[in-house]
Order: sequence, then structure tokens, then C-alpha cells
Amino acid sequence: MREVVVAGVGMTAFGKHPGRSITSLVTESVGDALADAGVAAANSPIGAVFYGNVASGLLQGQESTRGQHAICECGLQGIPLINVENACASGSTALNQAWLAVASGQVDMAIAIGAEKLHVEDKSRAFAAMTSALNQDRLDELAADLGHSGTGSIFMDVYARFATWYLQRSDATVEDFAAVSVKNHEHGLRNPKAQYGGRLTVDEVLSARKVSGPLTVPMCAPMSDGAAAVVLTTPELATRYGAAPVRLLATVVAAGHEGTYGELVPNAARRAYEMAGVGPADLDVIECHDAAAPAELIVLEELGVCEPGRAPALLRAGETRIGGRLPVNPSGGLQSKGHPLGATGLAQVIELVDQLRGRSGERQVAGARLALAENAGGYLGPDAAVATITILGG
Amino acid sequence: MREVVVAGVGMTAFGKHPGRSITSLVTESVGDALADAGVAAANSPIGAVFYGNVASGLLQGQESTRGQHAICECGLQGIPLINVENACASGSTALNQAWLAVASGQVDMAIAIGAEKLHVEDKSRAFAAMTSALNQDRLDELAADLGHSGTGSIFMDVYARFATWYLQRSDATVEDFAAVSVKNHEHGLRNPKAQYGGRLTVDEVLSARKVSGPLTVPMCAPMSDGAAAVVLTTPELATRYGAAPVRLLATVVAAGHEGTYGELVPNAARRAYEMAGVGPADLDVIECHDAAAPAELIVLEELGVCEPGRAPALLRAGETRIGGRLPVNPSGGLQSKGHPLGATGLAQVIELVDQLRGRSGERQVAGARLALAENAGGYLGPDAAVATITILGG
Repeated sequence: MREVVVAGVGMTAFGKHPGRSITSLVTESVGDALADAGVAAANSPIGAVFYGNVASGLLQGQESTRGQHAICECGLQGIPLINVENACASGSTALNQAWLAVASGQVDMAIAIGAEKLHVEDKSRAFAAMTSALNQDRLDELAADLGHSGTGSIFMDVYARFATWYLQRSDATVEDFAAVSVKNHEHGLRNPKAQYGGRLTVDEVLSARKVSGPLTVPMCAPMSDGAAAVVLTTPELATRYGAAPVRLLATVVAAGHEGTYGELVPNAARRAYEMAGVGPADLDVIECHDAAAPAELIVLEELGVCEPGRAPALLRAGETRIGGRLPVNPSGGLQSKGHPLGATGLAQVIELVDQLRGRSGERQVAGARLALAENAGGYLGPDAAVATITILGG
Repeated sequence: MREVVVAGVGMTAFGKHPGRSITSLVTESVGDALADAGVAAANSPIGAVFYGNVASGLLQGQESTRGQHAICECGLQGIPLINVENACASGSTALNQAWLAVASGQVDMAIAIGAEKLHVEDKSRAFAAMTSALNQDRLDELAADLGHSGTGSIFMDVYARFATWYLQRSDATVEDFAAVSVKNHEHGLRNPKAQYGGRLTVDEVLSARKVSGPLTVPMCAPMSDGAAAVVLTTPELATRYGAAPVRLLATVVAAGHEGTYGELVPNAARRAYEMAGVGPADLDVIECHDAAAPAELIVLEELGVCEPGRAPALLRAGETRIGGRLPVNPSGGLQSKGHPLGATGLAQVIELVDQLRGRSGERQVAGARLALAENAGGYLGPDAAVATITILGG
């Protein structure tokens, strides 16, 4: 495999985009990514497009050939396109396939695009789309098992179960979960593309409306619209087009199955570290899949950046905030930046590319040289769980 | 890129499978493909799974992580899986990605799976799934443009338009379209996995129920359930497992855009011939996307196996029947074998693998050494059109 770099990135602000179509969001993100890479859509050297999306079938009535319609105003029409899906890890799965296309020499430049528009008039349809990894029968079983209240996303019941389990096996407290939310919202305040930045206190987070178990609203990723795009190419071609390349050192897609919930991310991370030739101690900055606050603590341990049960200590010592030893979710994470399913994995990568290029403004992690993104999906059932790890080097 | 071979193939019969789930169909096809490749699912060397499906969101309520659920009884759980979609070309798109995973050295063995279950109680839901490359607004526009009757698949109105256009630019007659259907149903009679084999006459086909324009029922692909799976690996590994390998010489995914309907397949074919180092004159057998009878004639010309306008002459001379110079759709094609969208592209490849291995029984093409499959999808709108070409060598 040959070396691959990120040559260009682009994303819309995440949030509510009433009146804008998926195509409009994709057109903006792709336009920015192409400009950043120094290439024009017309006669572009892009040889493959990979498009990640979860909910357009249910929410936009665009079931088949979603990517073809999403890119129809980008100037990328006529380039081979492959629609990929892996629940909330669809964006990073698209990146993985784009990497393979370039790394293998099949094409010299590829683009990974992810997009989602979750804000529709009837909110229950969006919740249904978010849990569409299970069909209705399995969903009913899970809802009964979790004691789901009947409103809101059942996903947060799953995260609440993880949270309860984590409270039992570590010295974490609900105040720690709230502190993750406070940190990420403070980070998000510095990110003009984040959906909800804010200065919150632990008490405010704890006294906010309950979602499920120990989780309150600010601890949970909001519903978001947004699109993100990442252009990959060879170092030589990036230089020729005048891009500011960032090395894509590793990309791994891993699948879970019965009984492996706790092994999925560790296994994926081990493979990614090996591929990149680095270890967790080498990392300078992390974006992880904090769809709910406790997940950030659990994942940090699974990534091996601290001993099991020690993530709360890292948090309390301020090590995971911007300015700390290992900032986590400087973008604001899913909780603050937002979580437009298919775009999320690429937005994580975009944040890290900005950090490694020193272009993150008020939220810059000083001296960031090595970065890791963890994206996850399908955690509603053990057989559907997907985790991806991406490692980038400046 | 390293050489890649097909090591194992498996497919269910195509047709109506009431009472069987997608998972059941996939389990059968994957089991057969693994056995054919000489590998067991447990501790298999398979490093990646690619799953193609179009309609499970609309018809089975399984929108997200479709492949993960489809393979949950196959023993393949825990292997990285990527769901891919490209309308009726989803199966061959999965094959293309599986090829890249092996050819690049990312994994040593990969499996491409395609499945569909179109028979549901309310037939209009299946028609809706088949046209889900367009959202309702665009579909309404197209229906108005084509004068769609309001029942049946609008796809056949699109094919009827192609047919009318072809009648004008060649010396083809509606009797030729009927003769394609007669030939393919006769081929299908020899295929135990075909949905509708039969000895028809040209008159019978012409006097059958009209579908759209010159098209009658036997000229159109039926609605089908089915699954198909293809195991790819290196020549060395295939030999080690005792498989009967068939060389995968080329696989190309191409995308259409405004104004390129007539260029899409020729361009894809040109790239595939170049990749395989062969030309159309070298081919011994072809499977093509005859979703409606006229498409077979049009595609043969687009593949360059005869001069423009000369496909009817080939047909009339018996050259495209089994026993002729260049048999086309010996499996029965989509018209006779059936067309379970996501499985179709892989079923074409399976037919050709059987032919190249000399295992096609009554429908064996004598001395078949080089074979080509053309699979297409998304032809409802120019920007959504996809064509794939696969070339296999014995």
C-alpha cells in the first residue's frame, strides 16, 4: 500500500438547516474540501467517490443511489460512486474505502462524503431513523428489555446501561459524566461549526431534563443536520496541487459480535496502532464517539490511553480539556458539535486535520502532531456494532 | 495490484420464497459459497465482507446495518463488514470492493454477498422499492414525462423508451425483442435456479399482457427473492484450500451523468477490456442486464461485440443462444432467472464461474474460457445511472 494523505476538508456547520436539502449541504462541504485540496471539480483528478448516509431513506424518501443524488450539484457526476452504510460509523467507513482506493493505487485521488438531515417535522421519524439498525420486532424486544419510556431515542437507554455498568466497575460518578459534558460544551463554544456551545456547570448539567438513567439532555448528542467531505490523495499529488497534506497513518473498520462489546474498540485500536506504528502514549489529541458523556470515559480506557477505571482521574485533573496533556473532543464532540449520523465520522477527522495543520483558532491544541478518531455505530445489537479508528499525523 | 480469483460461489434459487427471511436466504448462499471455496466460517481466513442490498429498508424494515443482520447466522460475525448500495448494480459493486480488498493486499480473502426479498404482501411497496432511486417528487415528474399508467414499475416505461429509441436507430423489430425473451426462457428452462423457464414462441410473447410500449410480461424481469455470494482470494490461497479458482480479470464500476446514457456502458467496457488485456472478440459467453428484452440487444452493441445496429442479426443467426458463437445470458438472464436487485450482479458472476469451470450441465457453453458480465442500475435518472463490468477467465 502506498502512503495516503488528507489533502482537503470541508464541512457545513452542524445544527438545524431548515429549508436546505441534503444536496445543498453536500455541495457546500464538497466545494470547501475541493478548494482546500486545491482542485476544481471540473476535470478533477478524483477517481472515486464514497458516500455515507444512514437516514435519507426514511427521512428524505431517497432510498437508493443516495450519493448520486447528493452530489448532483457538486461537479462530481460521472465519477464512480459507491454508497456505503455502517450506522453512525458510515462516514469513517466511507473514509476507509476511499483510503483503500488511493492506497492500493486504484485511483490517485478519492473523496469521502457523509451527510445527514435529521430535522424533519415529525421528530419520532428521526428517532426511528436513528434506531433503524434494528427492525421493529427487535426494537420492541430491546425496548422492553431496557424499560424504554416510549419517547425519545432508545439509543440513550443503551448508553444509560453502559453508564450504569461503568459506574459499577470504576470510581466514576455522575458528576464525572456531567463534567465531560461541561468540558465538551466549553470546547464547542470555541467551534463556530458546533451546534450547541455553552458555559455550563456540573450542577446545571445534572439538573437538566433527564433522558435515561443517569443521562440528562446536555450529556446526550443532539439531533443534527450537516455534511462533511474529505479529499484523499498521494503526498506527491497533494504537493502538486498546493494542498497542506496531513498523513493518514491508519484506518480500521471493525465489527462486533455477541459477547464482544468490551473488546471491539480495543481490538480496532490495537490494529490501528500497529498500522500506524504508534502507541496510545504517542497521541496528542483525540476525537471520540461521545454520543453520550459516559462513552468518552469508557472509550478512553478502551483506547489504552489510561488504565481501566482511570479515565475519571484524567478528566478531573483537566488532562482531557484543551490545554491539558491529551485534549479529547476539542471540537465539542458529538454532545456539543452535533451528530448528523453519516457526517460524524468525517467531521471528527476534519477537526483533527485542522488541529494538525494548526488551523483550529481558539481551540488549537498546542503542538499537536499525532491524532486519533474513534467512531462507532450500530450498538443497539451486539451483532450490528461497528467501530472505526483513524490515526492522522502532521 | 495482485491477482485475484473467485474461489467459491453460492446462490439460492431465485423466485418466491414465502416464509423465508433475508437472513435465511443469505445463510444458504454463503454456506454454499464457503463450502465451494473449501473454507469453514469458523476461523475462516475471510477478512472483509461486502453486502449489497437495495430494498430491505422499505420492505423488511431493516434500514441500517443490513448486512450485519443478514449474516447473523452465517458464522461471519465479527469480520469487518461494509454495506454497499448502487441500485440494481449493488451486487457487482460489492464484488468490486471485495476485489479491491484482496487485490490491494488488505485482506487475503473476502466475500461479496447480495440479497433481496421483493415479494411482500402489498405489491405496490415492491414497485416503490424498485424505483427508490428517485424520491417521490422526481418520480412524479418522470411518471408524467413517460405517461406512466399508474400501475406496475415505472422502470419498464424507461425500458420501453429505450426500446422505441432502439427500434428507430436499428433494423430491430418487436419480433426481435420477443425472440430475446424466447431464447432466455429456453436457457432458463435448463437452469434449476431460474424463476421462470419455459418454451415460448415469438407469437406467445407478443400476445402476452402488455407492460409498457412494445414490452410484454415475458420480456420483463419478474419480481424475485434470492441471495448470492462470491468468495474472492489469491490464486495461492485458493489452491491451498482446494478450490477450483476462476480468474477475476477485471471489475469496473462506472457512473453516468446527464447526456451520457449511450456512453456509460461503452466507457465501462473499454476500461474493463484494458484491465483484462482482452477485447470483445475474445469473449466466449456473456451475462448482461436484460431487465427488459431490448436491453440485451442494446448492451451487446455497447459492449462492442458487434457493430451498432447489428445485434438483431446476431440474434436471428442464433449466435447468442447456447450452442451459438457467443451465448448471451445462458442462465436465463434477468427475464427468466429472476432479478432480486442486490443479488443480480453476483448471480451473473456465479453463472459465468460455473460456465468457466464446466459445471453448467445442460446449459454448458462448450469451451468457455473468457466471460463478461454487465450489471446496471439507477437508470431512472441520468445522474443515478451505474454500470459495472466484470471479466472472468478460466
